[in-house]
Amino acid sequence: MSFQVIHNDKNSKARVGLLNTKRGIIQTPVFMPVGTQATVKAITPYTLEEMGTEIILGNAYHLYLRPGTDLIKKAGGLHKFMNWQGPILTDSGGYQVFSLSILRKITDKGVTFQSHIDGSKHFIGPKECLEIQDILGSDICMVLDECSPYPCEYEDAKIAVERTLKWAEISRKVELNSGNKIFAIVQGSTFKDLRHDCAEKLVDMDFDGYAVGGVSVGEPPELIYEIVEYTLPLLPDNKPKYIMGMGTPEDILESVGHGADMFDCIIPTRYGRTAHAFTAKGKLNLRNAAYTDDLSPVDPECDCYLCKNFTRAYVRHLFYAKEMLGPQLLSQHNVHFYLNMIKQIRIAIKQDRFIQFKADFLKKYKN
Amino acid sequence: MSFQVIHNDKNSKARVGLLNTKRGIIQTPVFMPVGTQATVKAITPYTLEEMGTEIILGNAYHLYLRPGTDLIKKAGGLHKFMNWQGPILTDSGGYQVFSLSILRKITDKGVTFQSHIDGSKHFIGPKECLEIQDILGSDICMVLDECSPYPCEYEDAKIAVERTLKWAEISRKVELNSGNKIFAIVQGSTFKDLRHDCAEKLVDMDFDGYAVGGVSVGEPPELIYEIVEYTLPLLPDNKPKYIMGMGTPEDILESVGHGADMFDCIIPTRYGRTAHAFTAKGKLNLRNAAYTDDLSPVDPECDCYLCKNFTRAYVRHLFYAKEMLGPQLLSQHNVHFYLNMIKQIRIAIKQDRFIQFKADFLKKYKN
Repeated sequence: MSFQVIHNDKNSKARVGLLNTKRGIIQTPVFMPVGTQATVKAITPYTLEEMGTEIILGNAYHLYLRPGTDLIKKAGGLHKFMNWQGPILTDSGGYQVFSLSILRKITDKGVTFQSHIDGSKHFIGPKECLEIQDILGSDICMVLDECSPYPCEYEDAKIAVERTLKWAEISRKVELNSGNKIFAIVQGSTFKDLRHDCAEKLVDMDFDGYAVGGVSVGEPPELIYEIVEYTLPLLPDNKPKYIMGMGTPEDILESVGHGADMFDCIIPTRYGRTAHAFTAKGKLNLRNAAYTDDLSPVDPECDCYLCKNFTRAYVRHLFYAKEMLGPQLLSQHNVHFYLNMIKQIRIAIKQDRFIQFKADFLKKYKN
Repeated sequence: MSFQVIHNDKNSKARVGLLNTKRGIIQTPVFMPVGTQATVKAITPYTLEEMGTEIILGNAYHLYLRPGTDLIKKAGGLHKFMNWQGPILTDSGGYQVFSLSILRKITDKGVTFQSHIDGSKHFIGPKECLEIQDILGSDICMVLDECSPYPCEYEDAKIAVERTLKWAEISRKVELNSGNKIFAIVQGSTFKDLRHDCAEKLVDMDFDGYAVGGVSVGEPPELIYEIVEYTLPLLPDNKPKYIMGMGTPEDILESVGHGADMFDCIIPTRYGRTAHAFTAKGKLNLRNAAYTDDLSPVDPECDCYLCKNFTRAYVRHLFYAKEMLGPQLLSQHNVHFYLNMIKQIRIAIKQDRFIQFKADFLKKYKN
């Protein structure tokens, strides 16, 4: 069994599952720290493992351009290259091609684009995209999709969905190395009929899992939640459901309640690099003068290395002194916060008290 | 006994000693990683401890200006503030006042200067300087000195020595918290008679240890070695002898052979941040194209976390991708290299084979 729901919350659509990958079983809901360029920013694999990270995310677009698949293949795959033994999901790069590359040209065959690094010209189609991920040795490969921006005209979103579906069909026929999974991505911007159409047709193709793509691309939270709430039930309950690029603690709680199983987001590490700390009582900007001589832990309820050994005043000092240790420790803390939150979510679901947990968490978090 | 030489090498002036501090016994020769601003750059205290760091260096000038002694006092001292339990030696900031601050005015009473951070005006005299270090809770405090630049006119160097001696006299009378040691600093630029005069008078004042200051400030290596070789024998053998701000592996080997016991240097961390790796076979610039697909460890003979788990090609990728993990891992490796070198030096001295060790090390290191 590739994916198995082991408990459905009695009072919501939240669920706990087990996702079987070549490199181990992942408990869902799961949060995947983002390691775009073959490293979760500022955190060693050793520390990730110690914090209980179950799976990380890599990015096919970035890794294809730099350091390139030749080197990663020679190194024995992405896992060996970056020294991460656990499962890796790689994003197809669909989103990055649209957000980062220059002079792109999209046809039904794929995307021609210039590298954001050195301007070199490349073509990636749905087949090539999966081949790249297979060379990387990704445990879960994402199909190439066309990600619509927000806001987006209906006609443009429709074309993107049609192309996403065409590419998905081609992707379904690609033979990957044994045990590697393929997830498809539902697009359709904020248009329910497009989301519905896209989901239905992808489900017919029978992928190993399904993602909701094209959310968290600039829409207001209410609209994101509406799309998530609408789209998740369109996906089969016996497959993992993944909301791409999401989100804040609030986003994750909301989506879990609608039945989402997997999340990835740059927020914990990016915020960590800009002195923002997640705590049980909300987000802190540790650059604030209020923390100048605050000798309490960043989050008194947290048991990460930072919170057990250092103070807010110290972290603030590190950021003002431009010391790398600041971003290092805070990135680590924030990822720990996310991993711990998702662990607590799983426990709450198993005990049928997810709704209560969510309410309690948010009440405290929003002070 | 505060300091005890436990073995003198039969064929050189190299020696192994034990330096007793409030926070533990340090084996000498010792290398002190530099933690100027209450952190060894990019390395956690946990990792420092794991690597066998015996003592680190802090800087009174920097810490006085930011975050300030009030906060550090409130936090229970520098050790608690930065979560480093081992001994700390703090530099007086004499060198920094001259190299970093603006609009400084030196009189026999001390130095008036403006902060390099915010332009605020400050006065530090020899007494104030030790008081700052005492508040920090430094295990070894350095006296305030006037550090001559290189090159330097004889007359200027002479004035600096006279002032350094005057300040040392005042310093000797300052009562520090129980157990804290005071080391004096020999100045005199490249002039032997000034070095001699300064050393002799400082020795008469009976400090807990002696440093050779004003070296490694721009002179050619031969000249540094000449000063070191000339000055070290002027200092009492029953006191620790510390060469400030030194140096490369070659510098350290040379100075140990002349009887030096203590070293500090920013080189391992600074080089680590610029992709330079120390290895048994010499220094590598990991940005070089030669390492693009080099899947060997940074230093095959090293057993640090970086060398046991990652490749040169991976580290090169991290630097090109501007990933913080590159500087993190390489700073850690370089400090480990220094600590391991000094450990090997101690073993060699105890076995009366320091000269052979030095020759073997340098032959391999210089390829």
